[in-house]
Amino acid sequence: MTEQAKSAVPVVVQKYGGTSVGTAERILAIADRIERNLPETPRLVVVLSAMGRTTDELVSLAHQVSERPAGREMDLLLSTGEQITVSLLGLALQDRGLAAVSLTALQCGIRTDGVFNVARIRSIDTERIRAELDAGRVVIVTGFQGINDSNDVTTLGRGGSDITGAALASALGAEACEICTDVDGVFSADPSRVPGARLWGEISYEEAIEMASSGAKVLHPRAAEICMEYDVPIHVRSSFHLREGTWIRGGGQMMERAEVVSVTSDSKIAKITLLDVPDEPGMAARVFEDLAKAGVNIRLIIQSASSERQGRITFILDLEFLDDARKLVQRWETEGVTSSGVVESDVAKISIVGSRLASSPGLAARMFAALGRAGINIDCISSSEMKVACVISADRLDEATRAVHQEFFPENETATASA
Amino acid sequence: MTEQAKSAVPVVVQKYGGTSVGTAERILAIADRIERNLPETPRLVVVLSAMGRTTDELVSLAHQVSERPAGREMDLLLSTGEQITVSLLGLALQDRGLAAVSLTALQCGIRTDGVFNVARIRSIDTERIRAELDAGRVVIVTGFQGINDSNDVTTLGRGGSDITGAALASALGAEACEICTDVDGVFSADPSRVPGARLWGEISYEEAIEMASSGAKVLHPRAAEICMEYDVPIHVRSSFHLREGTWIRGGGQMMERAEVVSVTSDSKIAKITLLDVPDEPGMAARVFEDLAKAGVNIRLIIQSASSERQGRITFILDLEFLDDARKLVQRWETEGVTSSGVVESDVAKISIVGSRLASSPGLAARMFAALGRAGINIDCISSSEMKVACVISADRLDEATRAVHQEFFPENETATASA
Repeated sequence: MTEQAKSAVPVVVQKYGGTSVGTAERILAIADRIERNLPETPRLVVVLSAMGRTTDELVSLAHQVSERPAGREMDLLLSTGEQITVSLLGLALQDRGLAAVSLTALQCGIRTDGVFNVARIRSIDTERIRAELDAGRVVIVTGFQGINDSNDVTTLGRGGSDITGAALASALGAEACEICTDVDGVFSADPSRVPGARLWGEISYEEAIEMASSGAKVLHPRAAEICMEYDVPIHVRSSFHLREGTWIRGGGQMMERAEVVSVTSDSKIAKITLLDVPDEPGMAARVFEDLAKAGVNIRLIIQSASSERQGRITFILDLEFLDDARKLVQRWETEGVTSSGVVESDVAKISIVGSRLASSPGLAARMFAALGRAGINIDCISSSEMKVACVISADRLDEATRAVHQEFFPENETATASA
Repeated sequence: MTEQAKSAVPVVVQKYGGTSVGTAERILAIADRIERNLPETPRLVVVLSAMGRTTDELVSLAHQVSERPAGREMDLLLSTGEQITVSLLGLALQDRGLAAVSLTALQCGIRTDGVFNVARIRSIDTERIRAELDAGRVVIVTGFQGINDSNDVTTLGRGGSDITGAALASALGAEACEICTDVDGVFSADPSRVPGARLWGEISYEEAIEMASSGAKVLHPRAAEICMEYDVPIHVRSSFHLREGTWIRGGGQMMERAEVVSVTSDSKIAKITLLDVPDEPGMAARVFEDLAKAGVNIRLIIQSASSERQGRITFILDLEFLDDARKLVQRWETEGVTSSGVVESDVAKISIVGSRLASSPGLAARMFAALGRAGINIDCISSSEMKVACVISADRLDEATRAVHQEFFPENETATASA
């Protein structure tokens, strides 16, 4: 093949997550998979996460030497995780006689805005990657990380390898960004909770973003945003076999859309209600500024207009930030922001996602009715254009998920279908 | 202090080895030591090895995915070890409120000749380090690694962190290169074998190089060579306390030199004797070329001129290369290079090192006599300008070491003295 013909072959980006590279055996399995599929993907860029165990060990070490490890040195420490997996996959491919090269974020020019621990990718200089692909090598890239203008490592935050994959696929004009994972694709509900969950053949970027944001472990919502912006199709599929999974792409390509694509459940949340918040301007702003400063991720803010609830602020946060939030609640109580903050950690959230929800109010009503028939009390409701979320008691979550799923996906349908 | 005055304060480079940073507790202890001594070393560059355990784990992982892991990807993999320790020490110092920054080889511009696994440092661009020192930060640098012209990591081979320390001290014109280790300094023999071993206050570069090359775990001989070239004093000292250890510097500063500075023992060797090697030109060259190609490190080559031994080639190698050498011996037997190769792994080497050995042949005689009085048979002898080495039976090594040490350092002398 001529140089020109070679570079006309489209690039494919494949991202493998932490469980897919969790052990030496899994890395060997990935090497097998790549070798088997290489004739079909001769220009291949592989993005890897760290082995799950490695990250935990590094975080534990950091806590042994520092009260609150963070910032520049924490990013340098955590970035070794992906450096280890890319080296190992490189060695495994080379051991099979395949040409492969493992690159760090610096070596493939992934530049970020420079914010340690939660950086955003600003640009990618693809020169080195293109040269390695032209030389016939499989290019293996560390996910989750970029560099700032001083060549310091800056990590992208949890799930950051998805973002690396999407950004590389976009910068390289890839044919597809494959998210290879431990499930077969995107389902209408978590298959471990709902055995009859449907595997989608295709969903839209918007649906994927809403699903990811409401707790489904599909992919990082920012990854879907990037691919939507650059019009790169995403293929969520299994890392265990080569069967097709779920394509995520522009909705215009689909003749007919499903009303609801996902019933998403999330038990790792907590709810805080601040009572008797003084009716002064700026009070709500202060509460959420304090939360942002403490790095607490807020999932939902629920304001009720009813008069008896006046002076209340309710919000839903990720369970992992509960300790930080509790400290703030104590401070607010002392400083007169609230008479009392009620913390509930025995709550869960169930959501339905679909691009036609805003134009079909009947869908939300069907969800509430399904929960009502199952005798499940709805604590509060939040809805957006493409999503309706209900907070319920945590111990009813599985039951609720199955009831709502049954409403929208009666179990007599085929298990696998296209949206 | 003015900028000029600050940069006039001399730099000190401190290198800590694998056992000194082996656990989170040890890293905290190093942080304590640095904090305590910082008023005396305000411009401090710290070079770290990997935690011993980490390197073993990485090597084991590599062997799980590859038959013979080596080259570029192996270096990228191993380099994570030092990246972890420098990050952790950075976090530990920052946790104490001290300004510190952890730099990789790339970030502090350590350029090598580009040979993977056994690279040599070619140059260091000290700009970033000087800027960080000027900003009042403790600079922590990954030992053992550099980068080639493509920004790929290239490691320096075993003991490479010593070389990094020496090269940085030389490039920065440091006041001293401190090698902080788990012993108190350089002894006249391994204190664990010879309880009465003497701690030297000072030895010469040449003596240190010979000692290191003959198996004493003082420091990497290339580190001593670099410091000798750039006239930077080395201070080998304990990482557990702040007492003085052994200075290694130019011999001209010492009025009187010790005749013998070290009795060095090395049990991790093997001996191979090739019998009936045909008397053809190029035979010896072929043997040692084959060994070099297989990466087998040869310690000594012993040729005997006596007629009954004609056609014999004897050499001493590091025990770890024995398996590789055995394979070569089998090939040589098949290919007529030798009628038979005799492999002995129950041998050991004892050496005396001193800068006056060449001009005092009586010293070698005293060594042989001491071994003879102890009833220890000398298998073969090799000598150079500053060293006499004898191969003996491995099970007599401790006894031999004590007997020879007693000859040159009668135990009624004080335990600590200056050379």
